[in-house]
Amino acid sequence: MRTQVAIIGAGPAGLLLSHLLHLRGVESVVLETRSREYVEKRVRAGVLEYPTTELLREVGLGERMDAEGLVHHGISLRFDGADHRIGFDDLLGKSITVYGQQEVVKDLIAARLRDGGELRFEVSETTVHDVSSDHPRVTFTDAAGVASELVCDVIAGCDGFHGISRPSIPEAVLTGHEHIYPFAWLGILAKAAPVRDELVYTRSERGFTLYSMRSPEITRLYLQVSPDTDLTEWPDDRIWAELHARMAIDGGEQVNEGPLLEKSVTPMRSFVASPMRHGRLFLAGDAAHIVPPTGAKGMNLAIADVKLLAEAFTALLKDNRSELVESYSDTALRRVWRAEHFSWFMTSMLHLDPAADEFQRQLQLSQLRYTASSTAAATSLAENYVGLPFS
Amino acid sequence: MRTQVAIIGAGPAGLLLSHLLHLRGVESVVLETRSREYVEKRVRAGVLEYPTTELLREVGLGERMDAEGLVHHGISLRFDGADHRIGFDDLLGKSITVYGQQEVVKDLIAARLRDGGELRFEVSETTVHDVSSDHPRVTFTDAAGVASELVCDVIAGCDGFHGISRPSIPEAVLTGHEHIYPFAWLGILAKAAPVRDELVYTRSERGFTLYSMRSPEITRLYLQVSPDTDLTEWPDDRIWAELHARMAIDGGEQVNEGPLLEKSVTPMRSFVASPMRHGRLFLAGDAAHIVPPTGAKGMNLAIADVKLLAEAFTALLKDNRSELVESYSDTALRRVWRAEHFSWFMTSMLHLDPAADEFQRQLQLSQLRYTASSTAAATSLAENYVGLPFS
Repeated sequence: MRTQVAIIGAGPAGLLLSHLLHLRGVESVVLETRSREYVEKRVRAGVLEYPTTELLREVGLGERMDAEGLVHHGISLRFDGADHRIGFDDLLGKSITVYGQQEVVKDLIAARLRDGGELRFEVSETTVHDVSSDHPRVTFTDAAGVASELVCDVIAGCDGFHGISRPSIPEAVLTGHEHIYPFAWLGILAKAAPVRDELVYTRSERGFTLYSMRSPEITRLYLQVSPDTDLTEWPDDRIWAELHARMAIDGGEQVNEGPLLEKSVTPMRSFVASPMRHGRLFLAGDAAHIVPPTGAKGMNLAIADVKLLAEAFTALLKDNRSELVESYSDTALRRVWRAEHFSWFMTSMLHLDPAADEFQRQLQLSQLRYTASSTAAATSLAENYVGLPFS
Repeated sequence: MRTQVAIIGAGPAGLLLSHLLHLRGVESVVLETRSREYVEKRVRAGVLEYPTTELLREVGLGERMDAEGLVHHGISLRFDGADHRIGFDDLLGKSITVYGQQEVVKDLIAARLRDGGELRFEVSETTVHDVSSDHPRVTFTDAAGVASELVCDVIAGCDGFHGISRPSIPEAVLTGHEHIYPFAWLGILAKAAPVRDELVYTRSERGFTLYSMRSPEITRLYLQVSPDTDLTEWPDDRIWAELHARMAIDGGEQVNEGPLLEKSVTPMRSFVASPMRHGRLFLAGDAAHIVPPTGAKGMNLAIADVKLLAEAFTALLKDNRSELVESYSDTALRRVWRAEHFSWFMTSMLHLDPAADEFQRQLQLSQLRYTASSTAAATSLAENYVGLPFS
């Protein structure tokens, strides 16, 4: 089997790359270990930056997002017993859209299949070969158990943090930069109508809480917990009681309770692989970098990566121009490090660090009060949150 | 001896407080352990915030500052081999003034003596008494060796970090928050004409450097060094070589060398005492808080404190209104923590932390690049640097 671009992974990165390449007349095949049903139901990221929504609309993927996504014009920071709103629309004339990753994936799969795109689900034993040559290959076993080979010009590793792409790069070539935060998020998805229509980031003396929503019927809530938290210690009653306690403010609305649809603990971690390329293998999205979820940057970074990759692959394969593939890693990493810094900023400003002394806690409170009261500081937060323009 | 306000310390805080009280018709006596000559020559802080210069002009102290001070309309951040200017005037329509602390002190002493102010230099054994009563006292030995007593209504402790005021507050009452930074500044004063007219904050792989000036003939330079640095390891040649190496950029001007007038090592530390009041003893300036010099906030915070104190003492002593003395500590501490946070921000963005890993170094570089390229982020730095308005 022969294609121009072999794409490993059918998450938002891999599928969007395939779609963008198709629009530019470049062929690709997407290989995915999971089933279509699985990736279409996988609940992960949920916030689309403003540049992401613009891109999705430009490439014909905006219809359902615009109909069903929840447009948010700001967020609130809750601390010192009150809400302090950062109005994105007021400060920048921009907004974000809450639209789950699984919905983006559904839209992308539908578009690729409509356009005759080749998506291979439930493959196994995926392995990359000869990435230092001009004709790299990917071998895999297809869903029917048949050993297969895909010869191509370039490979895009879009298979997430635990995928095979990054580990296939020799250790001597790739440096991984990691930062482990001293807390985790206990996340719940509840069948309960959200009581308000924007996200609330709460810094309380009991720990951080994020109030968010996925639809007019589904509330999404997160609690800062210790990284070694055992979910059995957190029956539903305790979760609701802790949420109410952390979010309590004078005159603040109650959080609606409802049956829990999901409950999980996510460690907070940053990771950056550098460079994001080895020969003809290019990493994109979580395969190359992880951000803590506080800045809502994960899916957006993946989309920014593949926008660059689509342009770089097209230049290489249609015009025989290599400068964009040469600069891909440096260009992508600038946005990655910006997102890592912003995610660190939001995380450290809002969480209670168990190792922080009173000096550091007072710095944190001063930063929050300043961010909420200075137009310049609020604008800085807002422009990072809604997403800096694509370069 | 009787007065309304006993002021301990004839630095910028104590002297300005005495001057402001005089303008409001409140009597004070200033007690200082050093000689007049010593305090008029003590080289310390050198940057006046915009609100500080406005205040000094308003109270008749602007004449020599405006004639001899160097007005700066911005600073430069030097990193990635280039200068990135933060233009205060362009962003905010404001500027800062480089005018040494010793010059402010000379102006203040001249004004107090002209107005018949009582300044007692070279006193010793200064001790505060009965601060929990309505008639506190200060005992001291005057310059002639005579034991004296000053009975008053309130005491202002403006005697710096090593003064007697703060330690005279019981430990159970006062909490000290301290943060030690893992580096120090080796500072030099050189008889050499500055090659440029604005400060340059350099983040190099060899460590931080600050390029500044005190007059058209005097350059002031600082090098980040280890806190345990022995000055004997730093002969003049090594200092100049290191400065040139850290500040080197393509096309950048050379630093003019010249005879060293002073050479010293200053540890980098933050300290905040809370509350800033105990009974009728009120702390102001370095007696209550220390900032690392990176944000140029030390003298400015002292001046903001005594502006509040002058208003609070006048309300108490002339109108018998106590709410401003009651709120003094909380009000002052909000500005203090803002300055501590900004100083920490500048310090951590520009110094090489020996304990930082590559992840943290990349975050630091991303923050610098963002600050230099985003109008919102540059404005945030600028508004803190030129000084947020007095409340």
